[in-house]
Amino acid sequence: MLILAFDTSSKTASVAILRDHVIVYDVMINAGLNHSEVLLPAIENACRQTGINITDVDLFACTTGPGSFTGLRIGVSTLKGFMLATGKPAVGVSSLAALALNAGKSSKKICSIMDAGRGQVYYASFKYNSKGLLRQVEKEQVLNPSHITYDKKTLYVGGGVEAYSEMVHTDHKIKIVSSSQRYIRASSVAILGKEKFDRNELLNLETFIPVYLRSTDVEDKQ
Amino acid sequence: MLILAFDTSSKTASVAILRDHVIVYDVMINAGLNHSEVLLPAIENACRQTGINITDVDLFACTTGPGSFTGLRIGVSTLKGFMLATGKPAVGVSSLAALALNAGKSSKKICSIMDAGRGQVYYASFKYNSKGLLRQVEKEQVLNPSHITYDKKTLYVGGGVEAYSEMVHTDHKIKIVSSSQRYIRASSVAILGKEKFDRNELLNLETFIPVYLRSTDVEDKQ
Repeated sequence: MLILAFDTSSKTASVAILRDHVIVYDVMINAGLNHSEVLLPAIENACRQTGINITDVDLFACTTGPGSFTGLRIGVSTLKGFMLATGKPAVGVSSLAALALNAGKSSKKICSIMDAGRGQVYYASFKYNSKGLLRQVEKEQVLNPSHITYDKKTLYVGGGVEAYSEMVHTDHKIKIVSSSQRYIRASSVAILGKEKFDRNELLNLETFIPVYLRSTDVEDKQ
Repeated sequence: MLILAFDTSSKTASVAILRDHVIVYDVMINAGLNHSEVLLPAIENACRQTGINITDVDLFACTTGPGSFTGLRIGVSTLKGFMLATGKPAVGVSSLAALALNAGKSSKKICSIMDAGRGQVYYASFKYNSKGLLRQVEKEQVLNPSHITYDKKTLYVGGGVEAYSEMVHTDHKIKIVSSSQRYIRASSVAILGKEKFDRNELLNLETFIPVYLRSTDVEDKQ
């Protein structure tokens, strides 16, 4: 099964192609450009460099939040475009779950923390079950980083930990996954997307909306 | 400091651009194509998608072995081309050290094992020092995987562990870094390359040769 996955839920963009469990291509771009400028050229590069055509893809996957409102809309719109154009199935993956994969397979609890702006973070926690599948422990929420109960037995991953590191580091010696692993990888989106496909949790084009967790800045201002 | 790094030491190819410690772009390609077809288009894509020109780059880094003979020659030739064309410095990085970074920052010993073909693996081990810098514990060598003394306290990383997994798994319950982390990332080459640059361990165009560890197949046949 050929999977094309992408992520535009944060400041970075990522595109990956997997053949079943094997990563064929994985790129992460953190150039401070708009996702609208970056995503489609990155997908085109991925296809060109691997000799794969969009019509060869069997499953599309993208992060569906939480994260940047504009980023999520670009990602999900692109996903819907591929679904409509090819008639192939698609799955939506939690950006915090994809981030958790950066911590590697561990028996510890993994907390994913993304910068949500306005002094807040997106937060969720996960654990691997006995079959080696990632399972959510605490649901996705938006909160003040000082409201998180930090724990020395937990692995923390994501840009949110670094954005508020002063607040975190002062009182706690917690385990933070190295900063080169703080970006979401589309290969993780593909891995989790394949698991959702296997559970038949497909995305329904008509009813689907991204997971925003809070009202958009635009809506706030209205 | 803008760093362009690449790796062609194994079956995969990877290109990364870092601005100091921040990963701006990182791609890994595992499409079964020749490095000669993949590397330069991948570097061109990286520059185009980040708006960076080769002449903007301050430091070039690539893996200099051990690994695939043809791959190493392509990587090192490209590195030399950039050095000559731009007059900018370059550094060579151990492919096994770059691979070790995939294990994440750990207090454990990290063993990097790459498939060397002919029933052998390339092997070296590393540990982070108190400053958080990776240091080599056991030197790079080529050996039969059954000659490695496996240890439950050590983290094992790389395609070599998987290529010979039957041999390894039967008797030992060892910690293997997840398979999605078995490919060398050029961002790791850049991170280690920057450390070498800071120690002034620059590559000398005239005296430099890759680390082959054993004679090439071609030389064997002569």
